[in-house]
Amino acid sequence: MKVLITGIDGYTGWPLALHLLGRGHEVVGIDNFVTRRRVKEVGSWSATPIGTFPRRQSAVEELLGKSIAFHRGDVTNYAFVHRVLELERPDAVVHLGEQRSAPYSMIDVHHAVRTQTENISGTINLLYAMRDLVPESHLVKMGTMGEYGTPNIDIAEGFFDVEWRGRTDAHLPFPRQAGSWYHWSKVHDSGNVLFATRVWGLRATDVMQGVVYGIRTPEMVDDRLLTRFDFDEVWGTALNRFVVEALLGLPITPYGKGGQTRGYIALEDSMQSLRLSVENPVGRGEYRVVNQFDAAYSVNQLAEITRDVAREFSIEARIEHVPNPRVESEDHYYHPLHEKLPAMGYRRTRELTEVVRELFRDLRKYRRRLEQKRSVVLPATDWRKGTSRPAELAPTPMPALSTAPPTPTALPEGSLAHGP
Amino acid sequence: MKVLITGIDGYTGWPLALHLLGRGHEVVGIDNFVTRRRVKEVGSWSATPIGTFPRRQSAVEELLGKSIAFHRGDVTNYAFVHRVLELERPDAVVHLGEQRSAPYSMIDVHHAVRTQTENISGTINLLYAMRDLVPESHLVKMGTMGEYGTPNIDIAEGFFDVEWRGRTDAHLPFPRQAGSWYHWSKVHDSGNVLFATRVWGLRATDVMQGVVYGIRTPEMVDDRLLTRFDFDEVWGTALNRFVVEALLGLPITPYGKGGQTRGYIALEDSMQSLRLSVENPVGRGEYRVVNQFDAAYSVNQLAEITRDVAREFSIEARIEHVPNPRVESEDHYYHPLHEKLPAMGYRRTRELTEVVRELFRDLRKYRRRLEQKRSVVLPATDWRKGTSRPAELAPTPMPALSTAPPTPTALPEGSLAHGP
Repeated sequence: MKVLITGIDGYTGWPLALHLLGRGHEVVGIDNFVTRRRVKEVGSWSATPIGTFPRRQSAVEELLGKSIAFHRGDVTNYAFVHRVLELERPDAVVHLGEQRSAPYSMIDVHHAVRTQTENISGTINLLYAMRDLVPESHLVKMGTMGEYGTPNIDIAEGFFDVEWRGRTDAHLPFPRQAGSWYHWSKVHDSGNVLFATRVWGLRATDVMQGVVYGIRTPEMVDDRLLTRFDFDEVWGTALNRFVVEALLGLPITPYGKGGQTRGYIALEDSMQSLRLSVENPVGRGEYRVVNQFDAAYSVNQLAEITRDVAREFSIEARIEHVPNPRVESEDHYYHPLHEKLPAMGYRRTRELTEVVRELFRDLRKYRRRLEQKRSVVLPATDWRKGTSRPAELAPTPMPALSTAPPTPTALPEGSLAHGP
Repeated sequence: MKVLITGIDGYTGWPLALHLLGRGHEVVGIDNFVTRRRVKEVGSWSATPIGTFPRRQSAVEELLGKSIAFHRGDVTNYAFVHRVLELERPDAVVHLGEQRSAPYSMIDVHHAVRTQTENISGTINLLYAMRDLVPESHLVKMGTMGEYGTPNIDIAEGFFDVEWRGRTDAHLPFPRQAGSWYHWSKVHDSGNVLFATRVWGLRATDVMQGVVYGIRTPEMVDDRLLTRFDFDEVWGTALNRFVVEALLGLPITPYGKGGQTRGYIALEDSMQSLRLSVENPVGRGEYRVVNQFDAAYSVNQLAEITRDVAREFSIEARIEHVPNPRVESEDHYYHPLHEKLPAMGYRRTRELTEVVRELFRDLRKYRRRLEQKRSVVLPATDWRKGTSRPAELAPTPMPALSTAPPTPTALPEGSLAHGP
């Protein structure tokens, strides 16, 4: 199949391109490199050094013997989107080209408006261009498990059957209760994609993805093929920050009580899942929602796993809870369903602790890059205030890292996951 | 109270200003006059001639002895919104300043994107400015009953209690399934307002308003105080078009089978409802959703009422179903709850048939203005294609209208409403 990936230069876009190439698909990419610029804007960079896109293309040609077609541009520009779709006529469009940081969206009113208007415009542009140029093509749209919030009932895969006041509707959209302007932008997208499938008969899979962890997929046979790894407060996930905090000799800092529970999935398994959605398109007018995560963990569990793995690397990291800048429940029920991907053939290939070990191994190589940016790891965006303030905790000296390969201590399988 | 009305120059903004002034409130308005321009853009105008805003202000001073403060500007401009709130510090903000036409949003990709980004940006701007300048102020936000779509269960007022798979959540947002980019923009707004109440403790009432009908409120003691009346395919409601079609000697043209059922409310009762929400603010952090309609009617019922009232005015109008340009169920269950406004003291003061008679009486005065624009009444926007096409039905000659006052024929009370 010919697959167009928007946001191909990003954390998941790049490994998806490699993965699809490895499976024999043709890959075309779009990016405007805005994530690179915006990470710089907050004073940070990727822990892994990322070459320019032409260098990445050359590495793919040299190391994998494949090529990636690329169009530089912005999905919020309709003329650009129309031109690329007219030229490329893909069988599937994987839409990852959106502003993806919740803290970034909470910085102030301008970041809030920009996040929502950019994300929504890009998606509407794609929907119109697909309708007019490739109406048989299948949209695989990146959403987030965060759209659902933390209701006190199980979380359906997009739709559920409701009996209320003596009547039944068998197919109602599951209520969304997001927790940031960013997450709401994804909710808005979901509504818009649903509408396009109903009004125009487009085909779409809406991916409610859990938090993705890890840095490596099997296709990354050389460090030139690595994907980006963000660890600052704005662009890095909690787990990324925890690992980097441990490596930098800082305390591991869960927000609040740490009972916040979310779905997670390894980068490699996220690529497997996206590929499964691409290779199993839906029918005309069908809107499929998949909950794309592998297991649920609380923030405290992530902190403890990081601390335990750090110990294997001779790092003694202390867990220190910091005031939660987010507004969220820190103790709640969480049980999302995830049955559709297994039905398409999904099987877990990576396990969280093993990936955390891999992160420690990989990131030690780039510790100088981490050290130079140690001030960006701690939270500076207070979601209640929505203004930036300087980080509060002073960094402590960087510990000497063992250069000997660590000896992993086996953890009992399955002890980490709770909930499906 | 001091009330800021965004969109004060519009169909509901203007009568709301008059109504609140009449109740002793202080009124400040914002508008950018974009609706005037956009109605021109589709080749139409208001059936009622509307003076410039300074003329409207003068009429209010002369006829009602009151004054309206006014700031010309765009709510999508944050600096403007901030400046006005800083200067005026209102006790309540009634946010009507949004693109309000579903067909307009369906014209093409640019109108779709514009509708959603404008509406969302304006609301986010207001939320931030209220948070920073008037955090105790109460936002009354105009949404639409169309956010809910037509589920096969009763429609709650915003939230409902759900039992699913053995667990219960007592307060989940009622699922939204809108039918146009415009309606989805209101869904997106609702999510954003809900979020702002949760993250910042703002006060908000989200008004799920039914279709509003009528042209007059008791405060309009002179025709210089009338509100606008749109009758073209893009800006006019079905009922407005039906009345104008009858007056122009055209067939009355319900879309499709005409079983589409929606909630409706008279302009005067909508003003009563908005005032009740303003005068009964919610607590900090509270997000109240009210279903603001009075009774539900099918499109066929509207067509039949119009035909019957036309006959009282010696006009024989034929009902002619035309292909439905919208994508919607034409035969469905519809039972929305509306208990919160009655609990605040809402009582119906106007009845549909009576208002339709009033429309015929008022619009005969402006029949030359209708006649000049007869080509804009019929549907030109196909929602499946999203491109404009010329109207299909050729206009027939304008009938001679009786100048004698009509003798209304009594219709049995209650025969028109079905549903709640």
